[in-house]
Amino acid sequence: MHEAAAILLSLFVIFVAAQIGAEIAQRLKLPGVVGEIVAGCVIGPSALGWIKVDQIASGTPLDVLAEIGVVLLLFSVGLETRLEDLRKVGRSAFMVGVLGVIVPFVFGSMWAHANGFEWNKSLFVAAAFVATSAGITARVLQELGALQRIESRVILGAAVIDDILAMLLLGVVTSLQAGGGVNVGSLVFVLVQAVGFIVVIGWVGTRVMRQKGHWLDRPINPLSPLTLALAICLGLAFLSTEFGLAAIIGAFLAGMIASELTKREELEHQMQPLLAFLTPFFFVVTGAKIDLGVFASGAALWMLLVVTVIAVISKLAGGFLGALSLGRRSAMIVGVGMVPRGEVGVVIASLGLAGGVFSNETYAVIVAMSLLTSIVTPPVLAALLRRQSEDYEQVPPHI
Amino acid sequence: MHEAAAILLSLFVIFVAAQIGAEIAQRLKLPGVVGEIVAGCVIGPSALGWIKVDQIASGTPLDVLAEIGVVLLLFSVGLETRLEDLRKVGRSAFMVGVLGVIVPFVFGSMWAHANGFEWNKSLFVAAAFVATSAGITARVLQELGALQRIESRVILGAAVIDDILAMLLLGVVTSLQAGGGVNVGSLVFVLVQAVGFIVVIGWVGTRVMRQKGHWLDRPINPLSPLTLALAICLGLAFLSTEFGLAAIIGAFLAGMIASELTKREELEHQMQPLLAFLTPFFFVVTGAKIDLGVFASGAALWMLLVVTVIAVISKLAGGFLGALSLGRRSAMIVGVGMVPRGEVGVVIASLGLAGGVFSNETYAVIVAMSLLTSIVTPPVLAALLRRQSEDYEQVPPHI
Repeated sequence: MHEAAAILLSLFVIFVAAQIGAEIAQRLKLPGVVGEIVAGCVIGPSALGWIKVDQIASGTPLDVLAEIGVVLLLFSVGLETRLEDLRKVGRSAFMVGVLGVIVPFVFGSMWAHANGFEWNKSLFVAAAFVATSAGITARVLQELGALQRIESRVILGAAVIDDILAMLLLGVVTSLQAGGGVNVGSLVFVLVQAVGFIVVIGWVGTRVMRQKGHWLDRPINPLSPLTLALAICLGLAFLSTEFGLAAIIGAFLAGMIASELTKREELEHQMQPLLAFLTPFFFVVTGAKIDLGVFASGAALWMLLVVTVIAVISKLAGGFLGALSLGRRSAMIVGVGMVPRGEVGVVIASLGLAGGVFSNETYAVIVAMSLLTSIVTPPVLAALLRRQSEDYEQVPPHI
Repeated sequence: MHEAAAILLSLFVIFVAAQIGAEIAQRLKLPGVVGEIVAGCVIGPSALGWIKVDQIASGTPLDVLAEIGVVLLLFSVGLETRLEDLRKVGRSAFMVGVLGVIVPFVFGSMWAHANGFEWNKSLFVAAAFVATSAGITARVLQELGALQRIESRVILGAAVIDDILAMLLLGVVTSLQAGGGVNVGSLVFVLVQAVGFIVVIGWVGTRVMRQKGHWLDRPINPLSPLTLALAICLGLAFLSTEFGLAAIIGAFLAGMIASELTKREELEHQMQPLLAFLTPFFFVVTGAKIDLGVFASGAALWMLLVVTVIAVISKLAGGFLGALSLGRRSAMIVGVGMVPRGEVGVVIASLGLAGGVFSNETYAVIVAMSLLTSIVTPPVLAALLRRQSEDYEQVPPHI
C-alpha cells in the first residue's frame, strides 16, 4: 500500500511539474518541451530531490513510463510521415546521417586522445558523441506543426541512418575495447540485419497496410484500429531492439506504416490524449537524470563546456554539410535538429562506466552533455523555424 | 538495453493477449473484460508463463501500469457520474454498503472459526471477504452503456461506503490481532478522516469546478482541460491513499468533480484512447496473478470452492437486502455488481500472510477467491442487465 502511494505521488509531482514547466516555457515563447526538461532538473535528485535517483534508474516504473512515452511520441511522428515523403529526401537524409556520424566521431576521438585516453578508449568515448536522439527534435517539430516540412523529413530519415551507424560503431569500439580485432564479417552481418529490418518493415509493412488496412476494423471493439496500431507499435519497438536498433526506430516505422491507413487522421487525433498523458514522463525523467552536481567542480564544468561545444558543433557541421543541397538555411535547421543526443549516448556511457573505460567524472560529463544538447536545441530550432516561415512568405523556397 | 527490450516484449504480449481475449469474449456475447482477465490467466505464471511472477509483483513497472489503468478507468467512470445523481441514491447506496460489509464479515468469520481459526484470527480472515473492488463492475457497466442506470449509481455509491467500512474493519482486526484492545478513539478518528476527505472533496470540489471550471482553459496547451483534470485525478488518487482509502476512490471523486465541467463530453471522448491503451494492463495483470496451481490439490480446490461460494452469496445477500427498495430485479443487479473483490482483499491477505495469521494455502485460496469473484461477476451482471433492459420496454420501472 505504501509503495503504491509513493508511486502515485511521484506520478502526480512529475505530471504537474511538466504542465507548469511547459506553460512557463510557452509564455516565454520557448517550446513546451524545454520547460518539461527543466522541470525535471528542478524536481530531480540534484535539485529539489522530489524524485530520487533510484526512482528513475533503468527498469524502474518511472523509467518504463518514460520509455512508453517516447515510443508513443515517435509512433505519432511516424503517423505524420509517409514513406513516399521520406523517399523523396532519401539522398539528403543519407548524407546527413553519414556525415552527422563521421564528423562527431572524428572530433570526439581527437578530443579524447588529446585528454590522455589511449586510442582504443578514445574511440569508445567518441562513440558516445555520435547518436542523435530523434525524440526531442520530433516533439519540437510537432509542437510547431512543422513535420511536413522538407527539413523535418530529412531529419527523421537521417535519424534512422544515424541509428544504424551508431549501432555499428558501438560494435566496432566494443570489440576493439575487448582487445579483439574487428570482425568484419560479423559487422557486415549486423549492418545487413538492421538495414534488412528497416527495409522489410518499411516497405512490406506500408504495402500490406495499404491493401489490407481495413482488416484493422474487423474486431468488435470500436477503437480497434487504434488498439491494433498500438499493438504493432509495441511489437516493432521490441523487434527493433532485437535488431540492435533503438526502440523508438521501430515505433517510428510502426507509425509510418499506420499512416497508410484511411483512418490516419482519426488515429492522429486519438493519439493526442495518449501523448498528453505519457510524453511528459519522458521529458521530465530525462531532465531529472541530469546530475547538476557535476557543475560543482570547476574542472568538470570546464570539461562539460568543452565536450558540449564539440558535440554541438561537430554534429551541426555534419548535418549542415549533408543537407547543403537544400540551401543554407534549411541545412542549418537540419544541422540543429540533429544536435540532441539522448538515451543512446547515455547507454554507451553506461557501458563505458561498467567496462572501466570511463571514470565517474567522464561518465557524468558525457551524460550531462547528452542532456544539455537536448535543452539547447529546442529554442534554437524553434527560432530558426519561425524565421524561416516568415521568409517563406516573401520568397518561395526552391525544393 | 536488454531490460528495456524485455519490458517492451511483455507490454506487447499483454496488450495483444488483451485484444484477443476481449475479441473472443465479445464474440461469445460476454463482456470484453472477462476475456482480458482470462487472457491474463493464460499468459500468466501458472499457465503459459509468458509473464513471470516477479514481473507482476507489487511495485514492478507492469503492476504500476496496471494501477494507472484502473485509476484512469475509475476517473472516467466518475466523469459519467454527477454528484447530484449519486445523492439521489444516497440512502440505498448506504444500506447496500453497510449490509454488503456486515453479511460477508459475519459469514466469513463463522466459516473461519468453524475451520479451526481462533476468534481473533477468524475476524482477520473475514476482513479479507469484505471489500468490493469497483473496477471490474465499473468496466462492465461502462461497456454496456449502463452507467446512467439507477443500479449503477447505487453500486458506485455503495463502493465508496464499502471502502470506508473495510478500512475501519482492517483497523479493528489488526489491533485485535496485535493483542491490543480496540482503541475506539483512534477508530473514530480514522472514520472521521475518511468521511471528511470524501465529503470535502466531493462537495467542495464539485462547487469549485462548477464556478471556476473555465480556469482549466487558461493554459496555452490546447489539451489543458484534459491534462489538468488528469493531474487532479493523480493527486486525489494519491491523497485518498493517505486517508486510508483505495486510490481508485480518489480517482472516482476526481472524475465526479470533472463531470461538472462544460467540456465534460470532450473529456469523456479524450479518455477513450487512454483507457483503450492502459486498462488492458490492469485486467491482464489481475488475471495473471491468479495462481492456478492451487487447483492441483483436492483439499485446496474444495476450500476455494467453499470460500468463493460463501464470498459470493454473502455479498450478494447483503447487497440485495440493502437495495430491496429498488425492487427485486434491481436489487439483484446491485447485489451481483458488489460481488467482485479485488486488490483490497489481496492486500489484507498479504498482511495476514506476513503477520503469520494465514498459511500459504489460506493465502492462495483467499487471493484466488478475490480474483474468481472478478471472473464470475461480469457475465452474470451483463446477462441480468440485458434481461432487465428488455423488460424496461414492457413495464416502466418505479423509481
